[in-house]
Amino acid sequence: MNWTLAQRAHKMNPSVIREILKVTEKPGIVSFAGGLPSPLTFPVEAMREATHKVLTEDGRSALQYAASEGYGPLREWVAQSLTQQGMTVGADQVLITTGSQQGLDLVAKILIDAGSRILVETPTYLGALQAYTPMEPNVVSVNSDHEGVDPADLRAKAGTGADAARFVYLLPNFQNPTGRTMTEARRAAVAAAAAESGLPVIEDNPYGDLWFDQPPPASLASRHPDGTVYLGSFSKILAPGLRLGFLVAPKTLYPKLLQAKQAADLHTPSFNQRVVAEVLKDGFIDRHVPTIRALYKSQCETMLAALTREFGHSGQGGPGIDLEQSLTWNRPAGGMFLWTRLPAGLDAVRLLPQAVERNVAFVPGSAFYADHGDPRTMRLSFVTATAEQIDTGIAALAAAIRDAQSGAR
Amino acid sequence: MNWTLAQRAHKMNPSVIREILKVTEKPGIVSFAGGLPSPLTFPVEAMREATHKVLTEDGRSALQYAASEGYGPLREWVAQSLTQQGMTVGADQVLITTGSQQGLDLVAKILIDAGSRILVETPTYLGALQAYTPMEPNVVSVNSDHEGVDPADLRAKAGTGADAARFVYLLPNFQNPTGRTMTEARRAAVAAAAAESGLPVIEDNPYGDLWFDQPPPASLASRHPDGTVYLGSFSKILAPGLRLGFLVAPKTLYPKLLQAKQAADLHTPSFNQRVVAEVLKDGFIDRHVPTIRALYKSQCETMLAALTREFGHSGQGGPGIDLEQSLTWNRPAGGMFLWTRLPAGLDAVRLLPQAVERNVAFVPGSAFYADHGDPRTMRLSFVTATAEQIDTGIAALAAAIRDAQSGAR
Repeated sequence: MNWTLAQRAHKMNPSVIREILKVTEKPGIVSFAGGLPSPLTFPVEAMREATHKVLTEDGRSALQYAASEGYGPLREWVAQSLTQQGMTVGADQVLITTGSQQGLDLVAKILIDAGSRILVETPTYLGALQAYTPMEPNVVSVNSDHEGVDPADLRAKAGTGADAARFVYLLPNFQNPTGRTMTEARRAAVAAAAAESGLPVIEDNPYGDLWFDQPPPASLASRHPDGTVYLGSFSKILAPGLRLGFLVAPKTLYPKLLQAKQAADLHTPSFNQRVVAEVLKDGFIDRHVPTIRALYKSQCETMLAALTREFGHSGQGGPGIDLEQSLTWNRPAGGMFLWTRLPAGLDAVRLLPQAVERNVAFVPGSAFYADHGDPRTMRLSFVTATAEQIDTGIAALAAAIRDAQSGAR
Repeated sequence: MNWTLAQRAHKMNPSVIREILKVTEKPGIVSFAGGLPSPLTFPVEAMREATHKVLTEDGRSALQYAASEGYGPLREWVAQSLTQQGMTVGADQVLITTGSQQGLDLVAKILIDAGSRILVETPTYLGALQAYTPMEPNVVSVNSDHEGVDPADLRAKAGTGADAARFVYLLPNFQNPTGRTMTEARRAAVAAAAAESGLPVIEDNPYGDLWFDQPPPASLASRHPDGTVYLGSFSKILAPGLRLGFLVAPKTLYPKLLQAKQAADLHTPSFNQRVVAEVLKDGFIDRHVPTIRALYKSQCETMLAALTREFGHSGQGGPGIDLEQSLTWNRPAGGMFLWTRLPAGLDAVRLLPQAVERNVAFVPGSAFYADHGDPRTMRLSFVTATAEQIDTGIAALAAAIRDAQSGAR
């Protein structure tokens, strides 16, 4: 039997990260590789109470087919909560999605033709590239630094006429993979560049609530509302196993996203939406999220301290440190990830098996680039491992790096 | 702000049925229009016990990210249960989907290029057309009768070379919208035609468990296993608000469907999968589904009796009945729907507002055709309304038809 595959199917690939994670599945390994939230943060008790209440009081409605737009009270909650991002949106602009990954799929379906130019950060979220690839775009990387994309390069690559980019995809807060955050000034410049170029923005904000000391600046959507689709998620503030996310779209675009949603899976599970709406009642998030922030901040500090202990500087070098001969790293202001760069001559993909041998794992940064990545980069998650494991794991990683350096010399 | 939409977005349309359902949202109306299972059949108590157990015993795993393939024990259950359809499949061929609608979306993504010929029954499930449309196929209707597609026409339209159809989409059991079932002989002929033409089959079986007196014949997948993707659902045997379905694919095709799944929503909610795996333990389905069958059979009989009372024959006419001057209908052997045809000169779309005025609603059959539909057809669901409402509703429908006939004369 010969199945004839669609052209797009040939362009689809297994997730590099999932393949890497298979390599790292080994008993006793300390994994900085996954992007999994700490299960300690999952509100199991609140979920148990809410599911009991929903099934007792309105179980048959919660188990029935429902509107493709999403459950009304949950859409209202989302619209209300976005005022904290400086956004003024109606519940009628909110579409509940099956995780925010689905938001990327819906955006791709309605905005990308084969060959359409789309712009991404350098590096960017791998899952977004996977969601866009089936629609066969021409993915163009915009130059980026520790504050995010370069507005001048964004303007230069926005294109015009038939070659105008369909959108730029941005993660302004505690980005996956780098952990970096766009400053207020950068946001203003990027929003201005997008508005002046007529360039739509897809703003992905799964980590924005996970700040350590202060909230990030207001969203891009608040600055460029008619030109932005904003994606949010309950995966990092409640639990990913619920697969609940949302998108907020300009009113002109909403109907097409809704039609794509109907075609994709009719609607997001009504059961999950009702349970979460019940959990969210009475300000639960305002009590719960600070506990996640405190845990992740503490874990991040543990990892930063361990790195400083092993490498003798605070990330970007110091007296007597040859930066080309040391690991370097950034200091995220929130989120789940830290971005590191290996000493000259080393390659993260080649280092990985040696690290795994020493019972520690990470994701090579090259996985996150739309084109040629920096082979020296690595993404480290500081949220899944415990503080003790972080200490052990960073020591093992440092040992693997030292070994590789001796070998490389 | 000018959003440039993808070509495919222009081809997407709001669901005709959802638009119709809006017309029929009126207090006190008896609706035969929706495709909603009876909420009386939802196992609320079993769900409550299972969610409690899952959250108590393994809540943190149930709320974490999970494998894109689906939850192992649920995949095992599906593989095992399919032996009843005459299928021998491994759990490694089972992919858990976010409702079986998502199965249609994944199939479309990996098998349809713009302009690809795909074949459908006449009429067919509207949601499938919606799932396929974004990939811009050339949809070709295969001639069909009360037993399903005509094998000779299937061969004729299978095409060859570059114009070979990518697949034929079939619902052999208690089809939506017609309620018809493919006989044993027809299945054998269709499977032979598909195999000989090298034509892949997408077999959709959401209703197969809802038989009244005897199970339907073995699936097409059991006859043409290397050439069939089989789609199933928990929506009709447990509850649709969970959005749990599955697909079974030949091993050669599975990896591409899995990649499309990862890109679409990472994975189906792990919480829902674990709860349902818990509900399904210890033979729950074998006790539960017979109660749904009994209810739906009884409701179907009530509707058939009401139709006979109003129109004086048993569906396909009788002594003294001029079939062109009467409503005709079929007698489904299971499922949720009954297919009817209005007297000559009437049009279901025009009849609908008059029926709604008399507090009864249905879906005009023309909504279910890929091309020119029969304007006299209507789909009636017998599962959502109560027996008493069915009597009232059919009397009101008969009155509306008589009125329209007097007007039409």
